[in-house]
Amino acid sequence: MSILILGGGGMVGQKLARSLADHGLTGHEKSPVTLFDISFPETGAPGKQIRGSVTDPLALRRLAAARPEVIFHLASIVSGEAESDFELGWLTNMHSFWTLLEALRTEHLASGGRYRPRFVFTSSIAVFGGPYPDRIGDEFLSAPLTSYGAQKACNELMLTDFSRKGFVDGISIRLPTICVRPGKANKAASSFFSGIIREPLNGVEAILPVPDTVRHWHASPRAAVGFLRHAATMDLGQLHDRRALSMPGVSCTVAEQIEALRAIAGNNVVALIRSEPDETVQRIIEGWPRDFDTVRARKLGFAAESDFAEIIRIYLDDDLHRR
Amino acid sequence: MSILILGGGGMVGQKLARSLADHGLTGHEKSPVTLFDISFPETGAPGKQIRGSVTDPLALRRLAAARPEVIFHLASIVSGEAESDFELGWLTNMHSFWTLLEALRTEHLASGGRYRPRFVFTSSIAVFGGPYPDRIGDEFLSAPLTSYGAQKACNELMLTDFSRKGFVDGISIRLPTICVRPGKANKAASSFFSGIIREPLNGVEAILPVPDTVRHWHASPRAAVGFLRHAATMDLGQLHDRRALSMPGVSCTVAEQIEALRAIAGNNVVALIRSEPDETVQRIIEGWPRDFDTVRARKLGFAAESDFAEIIRIYLDDDLHRR
Repeated sequence: MSILILGGGGMVGQKLARSLADHGLTGHEKSPVTLFDISFPETGAPGKQIRGSVTDPLALRRLAAARPEVIFHLASIVSGEAESDFELGWLTNMHSFWTLLEALRTEHLASGGRYRPRFVFTSSIAVFGGPYPDRIGDEFLSAPLTSYGAQKACNELMLTDFSRKGFVDGISIRLPTICVRPGKANKAASSFFSGIIREPLNGVEAILPVPDTVRHWHASPRAAVGFLRHAATMDLGQLHDRRALSMPGVSCTVAEQIEALRAIAGNNVVALIRSEPDETVQRIIEGWPRDFDTVRARKLGFAAESDFAEIIRIYLDDDLHRR
Repeated sequence: MSILILGGGGMVGQKLARSLADHGLTGHEKSPVTLFDISFPETGAPGKQIRGSVTDPLALRRLAAARPEVIFHLASIVSGEAESDFELGWLTNMHSFWTLLEALRTEHLASGGRYRPRFVFTSSIAVFGGPYPDRIGDEFLSAPLTSYGAQKACNELMLTDFSRKGFVDGISIRLPTICVRPGKANKAASSFFSGIIREPLNGVEAILPVPDTVRHWHASPRAAVGFLRHAATMDLGQLHDRRALSMPGVSCTVAEQIEALRAIAGNNVVALIRSEPDETVQRIIEGWPRDFDTVRARKLGFAAESDFAEIIRIYLDDDLHRR
């Protein structure tokens, strides 16, 4: 079973590739994996690396022409960049997605309808915009407040329609904020959610830019890989024509994150978190979802952690203690 | 105030143009109106006619370069055609919409930000797909079951994002099924909703392809013109960033439609309706919304008829007795 990972050079893409190399996709066979991205880490996960951009239509057509049986689409420019560069955001995140779907439809038609790849798209909770109910249910509208969210929501609609027509067999999974991210802090407004756990555990001071009453929605990188694997192998007929769904996660406040860290690592580690309010970050975070009721996803077999302590322990196991 | 109507040759576009010629847009000035469409009726409404297709990027850029202050976008290929010709549907209904928005953004930027047109887009209740609640509220998700619905839903997302960024000042209004349509029956599955009223009132037999228990959501062409005029003149700041909304209408069963016709025109007219079940039409109609709770739109001043009898009387006044 040939597998293509778009965005295969990123954090989740690399963890997915490693998981596929270790366990295959269905558990009993090794699958040839192709990773497509603009860059890769130096000691990357196993797989055939192809360097390129999703904004290159010819590259996308070449990838489609190889007729991969499973496609994981994780590639996008991040929320902040899509917001500051309107044109680049829509081009990279939406129009390129259309180009890929069209290339796959061309292969479907050329194969006489036999080629119909499984297509797993990582959407985002950014498709939602406030005002929210206390918990966002499976029938709540997509009313994004960022270009990134609007692009993801358009892609969900396209993928559902291409799937309804039988050109591909697609599913859009809306990931929670992935926490604890290994490696360095990045410029995303959400970066501190990982930073306040990761930095202290590495003996480094971390900045907390928001009040500890802020509530947010998390899942571990390991849970994300689990979502992707399940989405690639489950029977999508169960979705009927609602092929976009919010993934399970852990809803907790920053104070609860910190208490979980204290229970696992002690007061001296927690003491490395320094509060330094940042109004810009606070304003962005205020617009974000806080909690979900993911009945559909759980019924369909998707599972995340049950509390934030588990999320921290996964970071210790999979990243910190593995180095 | 210069006005552009895309799809100005269609039934609603023509009624809108006539209303603008009679009353202006704001009630105290006559506005130059440009109508863009692939064809126009022989004795058309007043306005400068430009023949062309929305699939012609150069034509769209020319229209944008004239910097109309108000744009009504009514142009699309219909639901049935978008379903049978996948490629043409997405090209005409979605990609062309993007091309127009980009052309307007170019004018916005070239004007140093001064040009920011009001943009009224006629979306559709086809953005919704079952299973439905008894009444569809303002926070129910868009999960379309047709390509046409998916294209309209994408356009709503794009228009909201272009508006949030300040390039245009847009609103998407989801029209109910427009009834009673004057003129001849067309191939739309919804055609009979008008046909069973219009044909008998003109002394002609009409076919009813569904059981009279079928419930649906209607508004008159006069109400549609009212929605468009209100959408073009109201303060859109009230919408915050939820710029797509379902319009008010009348929810009634086919039996209630027929009883309203009987009360207005008598038994002999009703006797011209002949039941002839059509399973294909029945299956399509079963997937359609039946009722809405349009709290937001009503609060914002949009109004439709209060019962189906009123819809019939509007057909008599505006179309049948005017000929």
